[in-house]
Amino acid sequence: MEPLTAKIVLVGSPNTCPDILYATGFMAPDPIVYAEVGRRKAMVVSQLEWGRAISTAEKRGVDVFTPQMLEIPAMHRGNLSEWIKALLKKMNVRQLRVPNDFPYGIACALKKARFKVQLLEGAAFHKRRTKTLQEVKCIRQAQRAAVIAMRSACALIRGSDIDAGGGLCVRGARLTSEDVHRHIANVLLDHDCFCAETIVSCGRQSAAPHERGHGPLHANVPIVMDIFPQHLKHGYWGDLTRTVLKGVALPKVRRMYGAVKAAQAAALKCVCPGASCLSVHRAAVDVFQRRGFETRQEGGRAVGFIHSTGHGVGLAIHEAPSVGASRSRLRVGDVITIEPGLYYPELGGIRIEDTIEVTEQGWCYLAPCEKHFEFK
Amino acid sequence: MEPLTAKIVLVGSPNTCPDILYATGFMAPDPIVYAEVGRRKAMVVSQLEWGRAISTAEKRGVDVFTPQMLEIPAMHRGNLSEWIKALLKKMNVRQLRVPNDFPYGIACALKKARFKVQLLEGAAFHKRRTKTLQEVKCIRQAQRAAVIAMRSACALIRGSDIDAGGGLCVRGARLTSEDVHRHIANVLLDHDCFCAETIVSCGRQSAAPHERGHGPLHANVPIVMDIFPQHLKHGYWGDLTRTVLKGVALPKVRRMYGAVKAAQAAALKCVCPGASCLSVHRAAVDVFQRRGFETRQEGGRAVGFIHSTGHGVGLAIHEAPSVGASRSRLRVGDVITIEPGLYYPELGGIRIEDTIEVTEQGWCYLAPCEKHFEFK
Repeated sequence: MEPLTAKIVLVGSPNTCPDILYATGFMAPDPIVYAEVGRRKAMVVSQLEWGRAISTAEKRGVDVFTPQMLEIPAMHRGNLSEWIKALLKKMNVRQLRVPNDFPYGIACALKKARFKVQLLEGAAFHKRRTKTLQEVKCIRQAQRAAVIAMRSACALIRGSDIDAGGGLCVRGARLTSEDVHRHIANVLLDHDCFCAETIVSCGRQSAAPHERGHGPLHANVPIVMDIFPQHLKHGYWGDLTRTVLKGVALPKVRRMYGAVKAAQAAALKCVCPGASCLSVHRAAVDVFQRRGFETRQEGGRAVGFIHSTGHGVGLAIHEAPSVGASRSRLRVGDVITIEPGLYYPELGGIRIEDTIEVTEQGWCYLAPCEKHFEFK
Repeated sequence: MEPLTAKIVLVGSPNTCPDILYATGFMAPDPIVYAEVGRRKAMVVSQLEWGRAISTAEKRGVDVFTPQMLEIPAMHRGNLSEWIKALLKKMNVRQLRVPNDFPYGIACALKKARFKVQLLEGAAFHKRRTKTLQEVKCIRQAQRAAVIAMRSACALIRGSDIDAGGGLCVRGARLTSEDVHRHIANVLLDHDCFCAETIVSCGRQSAAPHERGHGPLHANVPIVMDIFPQHLKHGYWGDLTRTVLKGVALPKVRRMYGAVKAAQAAALKCVCPGASCLSVHRAAVDVFQRRGFETRQEGGRAVGFIHSTGHGVGLAIHEAPSVGASRSRLRVGDVITIEPGLYYPELGGIRIEDTIEVTEQGWCYLAPCEKHFEFK
């Protein structure tokens, strides 16, 4: 029989390689191998995982092998190159296509064993970007958990007192970023979700978009809360940001909030199938320019609107399409965030983010969440 | 000036690439680039992360760049190959060494741009295996959280009632694996730790070592609880397993438990600097053989002692050394698990696991935890 070509070979831990989780539906911390040859799909897992893998992968028509079943000698059973070689031999394959993130060391070992290794152009699974109804349902579960956690965190801040030093207090104790992180994590857990890096950053801290926040929370300055939970059962993510302020905002900060809210509305207005990602991003940029919120370098650091308007969400928290300076066009089934923000060290940061689905009619929220800024 | 060689170039997300977290101490979900040239260390992060990266990496003598600082044109700023090319150009490097898991697509792009890419032999950082005092302290924090969560879960099971159908109940409601997962997660969170895949598996389910467990818990059969939390602040892991049983064990299951406990003791007795990993593993295997607990294939599935005796723990939950069929010898500063187990579908699974540090004197527990089996 003529040797065949593997359409795709993947290797890695399903929990950290979304393509593998997408292909197999199998969640596991340890590495596995996955291959598609013609219509045949196969994976190799350690003997420990065999029972679990069979019950998950069979539903998707994936054959499951262990190193033992592939007759890999005991001394090579820990070597993933050997897993691939044995699987491809079994499938009568001498030539394979691999994605960009395939391990270089394994590619070299396969070449040395006379396999022909070719790089796939673009994504491993182009279909992964377009979410099925079932996938949208999964992302919505994570997004709803984020909304419930956000409302609960907002209630905590809204109900806090302001002490003589301008710090937020609950039942007489200073309220910290860490307290709110914990509070959010507990609510997420009740909904089978987790977010290791929830952001609750206050005042100057919030001017760095990815600063998680630490220490006491203060009145009269913005508090950015960014909750991006992953569902523990199926691995899909949600993403939601609100900015709130306990007390009274400076007029300039209030204008900043208004500009971010308007920028989000303007970007959302542009979202429809066929719209370019760049046009959505530009809509947000234009609002900031018109309202005089400049983006510039300031002492080695960028200030203003310093990130793109959004990104795809699915089995990865950041995936295609990028809603920024990208030529890509939106399609029905894209799930994306729209999250403009402004960041100035002396004023802090403001970001408002929702996760939406691009539909035939335009778009819809995966889980709507109200926007309140000042809690007097 | 002669072009230099980069001792190592890494690319990936610090949160999923332990080598990058080890080199930089910087936790982030998005990919970064890291390079060492002579004594100089440098990293590239997105503009969003600049502030956070500076405050973390400067302490370790790592220079931080953004694509903007490296003058990468806007259209290439999302391309990690361009980050590496620009960084290496700045560092006057034409030749680089990369680890096994370096992305194949990026290696190809670098070669195309006439960089010479060489594969590192073995680990990216050999020193990573040997833990410093500070690292042991971090792993101990995670392990202590695991111990507290384990005690709390044991108390829950011990204090449960047995209903007429042999199910465990708490305050009149059936106690499930999911309830105990949640209970453990809450305790871990209180200690700044999280474990996405805690195992609480009962009866037949526990015969698959990595089955997380689901549904009602039952009396008179083993319940395997495996807690492997990662600390959310620094990323080090702990690992702890106990097997408990509410009610009365079958005599054969009680003998199984005795064998696993004896196998762990025998393996621990062999641990000292210079001992081969294989000798430690064999000590456990010998106990099972002497006591008549066979390891064999049974209907396509392996039963008995079907995994190795342990593994290293650090910034990865599974890392070097492997305490199994490996020629490697233990050294002072190794942090490893010792976790023999027995698995038979008709009886269930038993596993006992502790995380220990190899010391000059032999070994010590990172956090001791009592071993109780039957809760009458």
